[in-house]
Amino acid sequence: MSPREAAAAAAPEEAKRRLLRPEIEGLGESLIRAIAEDNMGRDGVIPLWFGEPDTPTPDFIKQAAVRALEANHVFYTQNRGIPPLREAIAGYAARLHDRPMGAGRITVTASGMSAIMLTSQAIVAPGDNVVAVGPVWPNCVETVHVMGGETRIVPLEATDGGGWRLDLDRLLDACDDRTVAVMVNSPSNPTGWVMGAGEQRALLDWCRARGIYVVADEVYVRLAFDTPRAPSFLDIAEPDDRVVAINSFSKSWSMTGWRLGWLTHAAGLGDAFAKLNEYNLASPTTFVQHAGITAIEEGDGFIDSLVERYRRNRDLVVQRLGAMRRVRLPRPDGAFYAFFAVDGMTDSLGFARELVAEAGVGLAPGRAFGEAGEGRLRLSFAAEADTLSRALDRLAPRLD
Amino acid sequence: MSPREAAAAAAPEEAKRRLLRPEIEGLGESLIRAIAEDNMGRDGVIPLWFGEPDTPTPDFIKQAAVRALEANHVFYTQNRGIPPLREAIAGYAARLHDRPMGAGRITVTASGMSAIMLTSQAIVAPGDNVVAVGPVWPNCVETVHVMGGETRIVPLEATDGGGWRLDLDRLLDACDDRTVAVMVNSPSNPTGWVMGAGEQRALLDWCRARGIYVVADEVYVRLAFDTPRAPSFLDIAEPDDRVVAINSFSKSWSMTGWRLGWLTHAAGLGDAFAKLNEYNLASPTTFVQHAGITAIEEGDGFIDSLVERYRRNRDLVVQRLGAMRRVRLPRPDGAFYAFFAVDGMTDSLGFARELVAEAGVGLAPGRAFGEAGEGRLRLSFAAEADTLSRALDRLAPRLD
Repeated sequence: MSPREAAAAAAPEEAKRRLLRPEIEGLGESLIRAIAEDNMGRDGVIPLWFGEPDTPTPDFIKQAAVRALEANHVFYTQNRGIPPLREAIAGYAARLHDRPMGAGRITVTASGMSAIMLTSQAIVAPGDNVVAVGPVWPNCVETVHVMGGETRIVPLEATDGGGWRLDLDRLLDACDDRTVAVMVNSPSNPTGWVMGAGEQRALLDWCRARGIYVVADEVYVRLAFDTPRAPSFLDIAEPDDRVVAINSFSKSWSMTGWRLGWLTHAAGLGDAFAKLNEYNLASPTTFVQHAGITAIEEGDGFIDSLVERYRRNRDLVVQRLGAMRRVRLPRPDGAFYAFFAVDGMTDSLGFARELVAEAGVGLAPGRAFGEAGEGRLRLSFAAEADTLSRALDRLAPRLD
Repeated sequence: MSPREAAAAAAPEEAKRRLLRPEIEGLGESLIRAIAEDNMGRDGVIPLWFGEPDTPTPDFIKQAAVRALEANHVFYTQNRGIPPLREAIAGYAARLHDRPMGAGRITVTASGMSAIMLTSQAIVAPGDNVVAVGPVWPNCVETVHVMGGETRIVPLEATDGGGWRLDLDRLLDACDDRTVAVMVNSPSNPTGWVMGAGEQRALLDWCRARGIYVVADEVYVRLAFDTPRAPSFLDIAEPDDRVVAINSFSKSWSMTGWRLGWLTHAAGLGDAFAKLNEYNLASPTTFVQHAGITAIEEGDGFIDSLVERYRRNRDLVVQRLGAMRRVRLPRPDGAFYAFFAVDGMTDSLGFARELVAEAGVGLAPGRAFGEAGEGRLRLSFAAEADTLSRALDRLAPRLD
């Protein structure tokens, strides 16, 4: 009998203590990860499953990190990030939104993901709920579940005209006395939907009157294809509004593996986010923060070229994938995903597995983004054009 | 009237929604940070407030990060860390503890801090409690508060013989039906106390019989001065025991600003920690993970020299600081802190502020480590010997 067995035999009371919180046991596995984890780096697979480019971070940012390492920027920093990075971000936001913005409203985080988790920790208690526009990147809503809250997803509708439409009344109707936030990701992962400025204003006014937060995941705000950038809640929010905007270096500056993002919030929440950064991971990697300054200050040309490339890719994918007989693809206006329905496909996870194994193309199953996503697949077009073409060649026999 | 004021006037219901969770409003500010944040980098201040060395990360680790950047290790990785790093850590742990250890029991995290937060997320529900040996690094217990749990601190006692003593019966008596974990940090920050192997076995047996976790913060396990290393719960835990051990690259490899750590846990918890990493920040910075492999594989000589240096510093501090007339300093057996009582000092925060402003020495106030720490100050001796000497020179007029 092992010591463990002996202890269990001696103490029947062990069983009364659970192994994990039920919320954690019940946490959904990322179904994107379910496809990707075992196949990362596998020869012959074209990986279009994650929201990340297939080209590395530009050299000028990598060189900034090397310089920071050589300058021994390897020690702890302030919880909310090094002051020059917070200043750089505030200046960038002021220019982007054409409004005053002080560093007191900026907290640097170790990724957009971390920014979302800190936000849920700050506002979501057990029994609270968060209403979110769906289909939605699963991670946004799972942070609410980790904190013991509930989520209510109000799905966009695919229109006959080949776009996506939000029913704002339905979104507002989903809110009740225990709603602490409405979560909006625009431009949207996975749909590419972009929320209009008028819709944003209507939602903000409604939430403001009720003390409900708008949690705006705006990591794709620069990646809009038919306007210079997408509308942002930061264009219209008053400095003390209950608006928390999530941003990240991952998408606009191609820095996915670096883990750097930021929160924009009312200055009065600064102390809370400082403590939450402290108790979650102190602060982001120090030399990565220094590289972030360079990204912000010298990255505009890079972002312009990125958007231009993704726009061409969007057009290619809409043209080729959208023309396949089994496919219905609403045109994405922003971000870098094609979220397309496949006629006759009812098990997107199984189909995605089949595509990896047999066609050598890695896509994310629609079900990963909630029930409303079933019947669809997500293809990231943040890839080289010829890689995309090869992937489309491989998909054609199954989708055309 | 601003839009905000208009909305508030129109909607009295706003007030019913709180700005933040009460647990977050009530979260203690780190009183170490209260001293340090405004004074970081200030000329003329000798900063001994944080648990970090004043010498940078060794070159061989920095060079590994540069090589990883040049090799474009800048993309997302597996949630639990890149497989070669997990294998390297498992091999290191197997050698250190002289027991089999598979990578299935290792989850890489973005710091020891993050590892602690993920652990609290996994097991602490509102109403649960965690019993911890104190005085304790505040961050350990604050993660419990973020999750809505309670903490019960059982303080070590300073002995007449100049050491620290744990009353194990008192620790066990503090547990009840809602206790999900006993948290032990050994070698201890701030006291330098090292838990004995016999005490560890008794505690583990007791917890095992009741299904209570042992959360062992072992980030200083290599930094013991009178034995080759400190005893570890991983020396005695069965593979499926409810033991979660926290480790970090910060202290042993002088990588505080890098944000890299790991969890060792029962293999059955791997899926839960994968999800928690995913929903907290995906995974640690990719090129930092690669540098971690080099640290593990080539770092033993560095650690030996570090321990030798800290041992000499410990002896210097015990000899000089311990001899000052107002000071009582139990001899630290591990970690790199002097946690000393000052006769007649009742406000450690105020005294620490005074020391920064007037003596130019940055120490952490004892109260930061709980009520049992009041009347004391913490000095980190992970510093160059001449820096320490200068700091002691500056302290002498106030303490001698």
